[in-house]
Amino acid sequence: MKLQNIRIVMVGTTHPGNVGAAARAMHNMGIGRLTLVDPQCPIGELAYARASGANAVLDNRETFVSLRSAVADCQLVIGSTARRRSLAWPELDPAEMAEKLFALEDDCHAALVFGREHSGLSNEELQLCSQMVCIPTNPDFSSLNVASAIQVLCYELFRHQHTPAPASPRAAEDMPASSAEIEGFFDHLQQSLEQSGFLDPAQPRLVMQRLRRLYLRSELTRNEVNILRGMLSAMGKTR
Amino acid sequence: MKLQNIRIVMVGTTHPGNVGAAARAMHNMGIGRLTLVDPQCPIGELAYARASGANAVLDNRETFVSLRSAVADCQLVIGSTARRRSLAWPELDPAEMAEKLFALEDDCHAALVFGREHSGLSNEELQLCSQMVCIPTNPDFSSLNVASAIQVLCYELFRHQHTPAPASPRAAEDMPASSAEIEGFFDHLQQSLEQSGFLDPAQPRLVMQRLRRLYLRSELTRNEVNILRGMLSAMGKTR
Repeated sequence: MKLQNIRIVMVGTTHPGNVGAAARAMHNMGIGRLTLVDPQCPIGELAYARASGANAVLDNRETFVSLRSAVADCQLVIGSTARRRSLAWPELDPAEMAEKLFALEDDCHAALVFGREHSGLSNEELQLCSQMVCIPTNPDFSSLNVASAIQVLCYELFRHQHTPAPASPRAAEDMPASSAEIEGFFDHLQQSLEQSGFLDPAQPRLVMQRLRRLYLRSELTRNEVNILRGMLSAMGKTR
Repeated sequence: MKLQNIRIVMVGTTHPGNVGAAARAMHNMGIGRLTLVDPQCPIGELAYARASGANAVLDNRETFVSLRSAVADCQLVIGSTARRRSLAWPELDPAEMAEKLFALEDDCHAALVFGREHSGLSNEELQLCSQMVCIPTNPDFSSLNVASAIQVLCYELFRHQHTPAPASPRAAEDMPASSAEIEGFFDHLQQSLEQSGFLDPAQPRLVMQRLRRLYLRSELTRNEVNILRGMLSAMGKTR
């Protein structure tokens, strides 16, 4: 995977200074693609002041209403968190995150997702991530400024970028599925499970969360998604 | 060397927000000792707001008039720079810096020195550093925010802190000399060389710079400083 194919996604950011500081941190490390999801502040003078010359990153930013649409074309979506979650997500340290990203094929796309300053990512947003990355910190004071977290992870990406590509390139059908393809499968799965009566329509969430985690962790290929959806369709028809 | 014995030294900082952000970054990584040299801004509301709870680091800060006095008791003084210098300094990457620091004995002290936002460290200040550390960056946009640079280097320190101590502890006389001891030697050396006529009193700087670099690079022990100064004294007397 190329550095240019990695985007930094900031969700619900409230301080324009943090967006500007993130743009500067990204540009320092050769990463140009900034995506804002539902920003809670104007991107104006304050943001540009803190960007300190990294104007192009701010000028070229993309804005989306939801995280789901912001990462739809990504084959790998990694969320950044300071907290350990109750249900274990696969958790990478920053160097492992970089290795994982650079092991992907050159034409893949990936997102590193950062949550709100005070409340992080919602549970629903976390569910879109197949991996979490956690920056090691002082356990008594673990909450990094969001732009500082972006600085540390972009630094790890920059210094790992010459990691060689994997030895044997994958066949087209073994390419990892995109987030949109996987979400399509999850929608399909939930409908199928609701129709089948397996999910309690009043409480579908917990079971779906565990299923999501299982499939996201396994990093589905495009081909596997097709197989799984074919299976769901077939099973739906025989009922 | 213990994490607590590493101090972060900010020289001539002009923005209180940067001091506060540095305090937060340090505390996130378990580093508590902040030293300001000739600060150019008040450390008040703005600094505490950006510290975001790392108040103890700001409360306990030390302030000095000169870098020389701020690092006098340090056995290792490492300067942070974005620029490659014309005369080659030993230059470490951040991981090498951390290894170097943690290879020192537990009772040693060390300083990581960060320059002014716009002009970095003066040549005279650089001369107090035995090593430089350079964070790898995009060559087209290499100037990191000072608090971001502190974040990256403190992160490297935090993640390296369990590096085992060197196998064979040094004898007392092989302990590294402190900055004050080494500066005492340099003063002695310059006087001796001026008296001897070796230095042009109108232009002593270039030669002294090269000598400083040579001796700083070699990381003098206390014993060696004593030997060198004894040599200078002896040679001065025989003239």
